[in-house]
Order: sequence, then C-alpha cells, then structure tokens
Amino acid sequence: MELYFSPLACSLATRIAFYEAGYDATYRQVDTKRKRLEDGSDFHAINPLGQVPVLRTDDGALLYENAAILPYVADRLASANLAPAGGLERARLHQWLGFIGTELHKAIFVPMLDQNANAEVKRYAREHIALRMQALQAHLATREWLLDAYGVADIYLTVVLNWARFCEIDLSPWPAVLDLFKRVSKRPAVTRAFAEEYELYRLQSERRDR
Amino acid sequence: MELYFSPLACSLATRIAFYEAGYDATYRQVDTKRKRLEDGSDFHAINPLGQVPVLRTDDGALLYENAAILPYVADRLASANLAPAGGLERARLHQWLGFIGTELHKAIFVPMLDQNANAEVKRYAREHIALRMQALQAHLATREWLLDAYGVADIYLTVVLNWARFCEIDLSPWPAVLDLFKRVSKRPAVTRAFAEEYELYRLQSERRDR
Repeated sequence: MELYFSPLACSLATRIAFYEAGYDATYRQVDTKRKRLEDGSDFHAINPLGQVPVLRTDDGALLYENAAILPYVADRLASANLAPAGGLERARLHQWLGFIGTELHKAIFVPMLDQNANAEVKRYAREHIALRMQALQAHLATREWLLDAYGVADIYLTVVLNWARFCEIDLSPWPAVLDLFKRVSKRPAVTRAFAEEYELYRLQSERRDR
Repeated sequence: MELYFSPLACSLATRIAFYEAGYDATYRQVDTKRKRLEDGSDFHAINPLGQVPVLRTDDGALLYENAAILPYVADRLASANLAPAGGLERARLHQWLGFIGTELHKAIFVPMLDQNANAEVKRYAREHIALRMQALQAHLATREWLLDAYGVADIYLTVVLNWARFCEIDLSPWPAVLDLFKRVSKRPAVTRAFAEEYELYRLQSERRDR
C-alpha cells in the first residue's frame, strides 16, 4: 500500500497504523499548501480536493477519507488488532471516527489552523471546543481507550489532539483526554512516527522559506 | 430500533433507510434548539452533544453519528441492499459517508444554517462549496449513484443537499449533483419521509412561535 501524506497532517494516523502493524508501506509526501508532490507534479490529479490522506491499495485503487482508510488498513493488517472485526463494537469504531472527523477535526481544528480563516471564524470554532471535549472527557474518565482495545480511533484522536499546541488549545481542563494523548504518544510506533514527521515538517518549512 | 430525530435534520436519512426497508421503527422527536424531547425531558441525557441522530438498538445500546448509524441500519436490514457488505466497495461507502459528513455537512451546511454563525463565518463556509461540489459533480457525471448501487450514501447526500434551499445555495452549476438529488427525491420512501418531516417541521416552528 502507498500513502500520500503531509507531515503532521491527519495522514500521520495511517503511518502510525502501518508502524504498529510492522508494515512496510510506500510514502509519497505532498506539500498540501502548494498541492505538489515531491517531483513537482500536481496533487490534484490524485485528489481533486487537494487533501491527504490518500491511500493507493495494492490493486491500484485510490481511497480517500480517514474514516475509510483507517478501517481498511486495520482490516488488511488484521493481526495488529487495530480495529474490531464486527458487531456493535465495529459500529462504535465508525462512531468515534465520525466524531473525531466531524466534531474535532473539521469543525474545530481545520478553521483554528487555517491561515485563511480570520479571527471571527476562529472564534466560532473555539466556541465549539468545550462541549465536545467534555463529552470526550466523560467517555474516557472510566476507560483506557475509546473502544475496548487500543486501535485506529485512538491513533486518529491522538494525531488530531497533537494540533492543539499549534493553535493554543489547552487540553488540561480535560485530564482523561490529555492522559489518552500521552498514553498513545508513548507507544514506540507513535513516538517514531511523530519524530520522523516533525523532522519532515521542519524540512518542508525550511524549503518554503527559501 | 428507535430513532431520535429532529424534523429535516440529518436524522431524516435514517428514517428514509427504514422506509426503504419497510421497517417499522419507533420515532422520538427532539427539539434540537431547546434540547428537549416531546415529553419535556432533557435530550442531553441521551446525547451530551445534543445532536441527532441517536439510534437505540434492540439491545438498548445508544449509537451516535450518521457514519455509524447508517451502515448499522443497512446491515441490520440487509435485504433492502442499502450498503455493500464488504471489500473495497464497503470502504468506498465509508469514504462517501466521511466526505458528506466532514466536507459538506460539517464544513459547509452547519455554519450556513447556524443562526449563531455571523456573516464572516458563513462567508468562510461558502468559500468551500465550489471545490467540493465540483468533485462531486465529476464523480456523478458518469454514474447513477455514489457507489455501484443506490444506498445510504445517496440518501445521506440527498438529506444534506435538501438544506441548500434554506441557505441560498444554488445547486444548478452542478447538474449531475442536482440530478442525483432529484432522482433520490422521487423514490416513494423518500417522498413520503420528506413530506412527513416537512409537516413535523412546520408544526414545530408553530409551537416555537407561540
């Protein structure tokens, strides 16, 4: 499988899933600001929306959206146990991927991190933080992971929560949320993936500044 | 199964799925502005976020998020063929539910419809329409449905596109998108569900104005 990614973007969740499973994927870096691949070609040819992640399957199909890619990868690498196989617990996986994708990623962090979003837009996004974090705090207060076992939902949440430091969101009012973030971040696969993408992010920023 | 819904909200997609399958669900109406059920009780006890849909399964579990509820209902009512059972096509179902939920529902329509969102916030949301609708237009230009067969992704899309009339979004620049909307709207199960919820919406507005 091949992953189109941008350093520290939500595509990092799929990289972490690959590392957790010990899977040797191919990584294609995208400058999502300039919508270019490393070879200078236009990323819109891969994704008209210009967004990562995009997954190229072994059959050559292109798959989009975290809510589809993360369960697909977890199923393909099933021995790593990163997603429940079926039943209500599988529905809960999609529930949490949906919550993270719509309530946190799209409604809060995209406008908070967007340089094209003005102060009013960021204020509106910020207004939505507390209720969502409280719901997450209440859920995590009595559990170790979002589902019964660690998996792609926790990974996606951790990648999204990592953006808090870039837009001055203090997670300390929600200690169970912060604890999950720290618990996941300490895992060797996660530590490695974060370290690599922080370095790629630094190099990309340097190139842009030139 | 029991559906917590609000008239014309995205919960309408689950009602349509029930009607398509000929399933006799229980419907519990929520005033999402006042966060109250019909009996006056606080809806936050059911969903801390105060959002519909919420599905109560036959085992009494509460399930949240369209991206989880729609596939769950489709699987439970499998003879109606509203979702692919597995493989890449199942991943594509989650891709489209993800796209509709994050790119259209949450990033565009929620701020466009929100009375608490000011003009700047609505302008920011409006800026994101064209690219997303163009991607949808390109996909639908050569196909009848989002996936290989009609199902919950088309239903969810139709319910979201129906909000365009409430926030002055003209869909005519994207004729294949408009055609899908019309094609789905003409189905007997969909016509019936829309008619019923328009009436419930009207009655709810009257009660609020009193």
